[in-house]
Amino acid sequence: MARIVMKFGGTSMAGIERIRAVAARIRREWAAGNQVAVVVSAMAGETDRLVGFCREASALYDAREYDVVVSAGEQVTSGLLAIALQAIGVPARSWLGWQLPIRTSDGHASARIADIETAGLLASMARGEVAVIPGFQGLASGERVTTLGRGGSDTSAVAMAAAMEADRCDIYTDVDGVYTTDPRIVPRARKLKKVTYEEMLELASVGAKVLQTRSVGLAMKEKVRVQVLSSFVDDDAPAADTLPGTMIVGEEEIEDMERQLITGIAHDKNEAKITLTSVPDKPGAVASIFAPLADANINVDMIVQNIAHSTGPTPSSTDVTFTVPSSDLAKSLDVLEKAKAEIEFAQIVHDTRVAKITVVGVGMRSHAGVASRMFTTLGQRGINILAITTSEIKVSVLIHEDETELAVRVLHTAYGLDAEDDGAA
Amino acid sequence: MARIVMKFGGTSMAGIERIRAVAARIRREWAAGNQVAVVVSAMAGETDRLVGFCREASALYDAREYDVVVSAGEQVTSGLLAIALQAIGVPARSWLGWQLPIRTSDGHASARIADIETAGLLASMARGEVAVIPGFQGLASGERVTTLGRGGSDTSAVAMAAAMEADRCDIYTDVDGVYTTDPRIVPRARKLKKVTYEEMLELASVGAKVLQTRSVGLAMKEKVRVQVLSSFVDDDAPAADTLPGTMIVGEEEIEDMERQLITGIAHDKNEAKITLTSVPDKPGAVASIFAPLADANINVDMIVQNIAHSTGPTPSSTDVTFTVPSSDLAKSLDVLEKAKAEIEFAQIVHDTRVAKITVVGVGMRSHAGVASRMFTTLGQRGINILAITTSEIKVSVLIHEDETELAVRVLHTAYGLDAEDDGAA
Repeated sequence: MARIVMKFGGTSMAGIERIRAVAARIRREWAAGNQVAVVVSAMAGETDRLVGFCREASALYDAREYDVVVSAGEQVTSGLLAIALQAIGVPARSWLGWQLPIRTSDGHASARIADIETAGLLASMARGEVAVIPGFQGLASGERVTTLGRGGSDTSAVAMAAAMEADRCDIYTDVDGVYTTDPRIVPRARKLKKVTYEEMLELASVGAKVLQTRSVGLAMKEKVRVQVLSSFVDDDAPAADTLPGTMIVGEEEIEDMERQLITGIAHDKNEAKITLTSVPDKPGAVASIFAPLADANINVDMIVQNIAHSTGPTPSSTDVTFTVPSSDLAKSLDVLEKAKAEIEFAQIVHDTRVAKITVVGVGMRSHAGVASRMFTTLGQRGINILAITTSEIKVSVLIHEDETELAVRVLHTAYGLDAEDDGAA
Repeated sequence: MARIVMKFGGTSMAGIERIRAVAARIRREWAAGNQVAVVVSAMAGETDRLVGFCREASALYDAREYDVVVSAGEQVTSGLLAIALQAIGVPARSWLGWQLPIRTSDGHASARIADIETAGLLASMARGEVAVIPGFQGLASGERVTTLGRGGSDTSAVAMAAAMEADRCDIYTDVDGVYTTDPRIVPRARKLKKVTYEEMLELASVGAKVLQTRSVGLAMKEKVRVQVLSSFVDDDAPAADTLPGTMIVGEEEIEDMERQLITGIAHDKNEAKITLTSVPDKPGAVASIFAPLADANINVDMIVQNIAHSTGPTPSSTDVTFTVPSSDLAKSLDVLEKAKAEIEFAQIVHDTRVAKITVVGVGMRSHAGVASRMFTTLGQRGINILAITTSEIKVSVLIHEDETELAVRVLHTAYGLDAEDDGAA
């Protein structure tokens, strides 16, 4: 039979009753003869509680001690799930990050997995025991505890699947798959049966909160077959390999017949727009803006430089517009003010009431006109485009936040993504 | 300067504000040039919460997984205290049970400490770093997490002090020392400056909840000087070696001048009395009662066998009375009913409304008449004695629960323990 990794998020682990439901679902996979490793998150809200303690204890906390504190949440749920599995007759044991160990970089609070020792784990699974592994945690040099950054349990699951050469990595979430767009905005959104790693990576990085972006990148690199499934299915549901979730796979696994021009439309309201006015139009000007932001670890996304305009006797100057995560806005403004003498801009203007709309699809590699159709469709509805970025398989535009839902709806229809009826295809 | 272990209980760790107060107290010892290791409990209520999860997950939980779950509480507080210390300029790091490691037996949920590796710890402390160690936890064979049983953090602290040959082990609690008796019952109770290990062991095992009994036994065996102090002292309090707590020491450290006949009076309402009527008065009868109780791990305390009385033609028989912890009463009755055919008793009578009153003092080794004064004093107030046990340094009597406070008060006066005024001497 198969060797599978199952991952359950915080909502699925929130309380013993839900942990029991998770145990029942695991038992079905185990009873079907599969070798099963399970990766768990902390109970919903628990990581926030622990992070809150650290912040209250010190604004500038030691990331090594932060990791000791916050990794406790997953330790608790992994022990409890092992107990719940044993209670229904499934042999199980927990394997903490330091016990395996899961070796990581020394980047405390946002460590990267380097290597997972699986010998003991695989021997235990071969004896029929379910392995329960706390997500989010690992072990750095000096035998110190690390964590992988928020949402890191998805990455733990994918890394575990890669290390044990699992046939499948099933991610159970509070949605039942990946949709063409947010079904709360477009009731005719369709659930995708398959999506490529590249597409999922773009969708995850622009606001589709199904999977942590890093986990998708790792799955792509390690060729792990990831399946997104709902944790809220009744006990009589079929085994996971026949469940209607979304499978994330390599492009070669998607038949031409199934392929769409556009796979999905994402939106992200967590960006802020900054414009610097009258920046001198001279070599090095742009570097003087973005170097201090990079030094401050601020991720700049969309950049638009207007055509230089000369205003009489002064040298020609230009306006530069770009976006940063809203959470970094205050820090960005501070960094830019401090660099004002060097950049020589006139004014800073900023706006958090913007949204980024992204259409994603590997199909656009071989089809021209995707971007053009986007601009035309939005223009027909009077939606103003503030900035544009593109990559090989996506086009993103920045618009006013109030127009988010309208833009998503009209684009969903324009690219032919609407389902025949309201609901999943 | 000195090498000291400081231990803080759950009340002292309940929330960041209190953890900050603990950090401030540690800084005073550290700033005085001492090498400091700190042992911490989980936040008050946290261990109960985690134990509750385990019980809810399965009535018969795997103790190995229980240990994974419940040890998380101390992991959290040790990380937070390290952060709080750093925030006030004290270099500090946490050392988890598996990191040192603290090697224990394999008796999960009630493991015993076998050995503590202190090399890394001592090197760190020699560099001026405060070591923060989660109490209650250790590491068994197979690198599995263990815990030491409820209240085990006291034992962790004493074991740590023994392993690092500390000059002192300061136990900060929510009382400010060991008293001649419970000050809530006798306002004229006096705080003891010193008490011997043997006396503290007797007091701890009969209801004085200051220290876990095992920790006192370990301190006695390892000759660790233990000091009981209040955690609720203001920030300007003097260093701990001049604070008016109670020092627990070897008998040789107590001067004859200071020595009292009786050191303290304890009471314990957590016992239940069981009487088996008409047990045949024949060899092996008593063994047939207590062997099955011992097999069921039930700790029988006081035993009274009445004089045999012959009732006509049947062989002579006797009533046997004994006490068990109230929490084991139901199990005891069950065990005895199952052994009824073998024991051949007529009836079981039980009563939980009893209390054990114990007077303790190494002075009674060399003075006769201690027990006699106890019986006389209680008899004068009409208090009926239901059972008696004695050891070299204590006398315990079982009485009706309603008379507990009266008995403690009259004995406190009779043995000359009352303070001159209301309050500590």
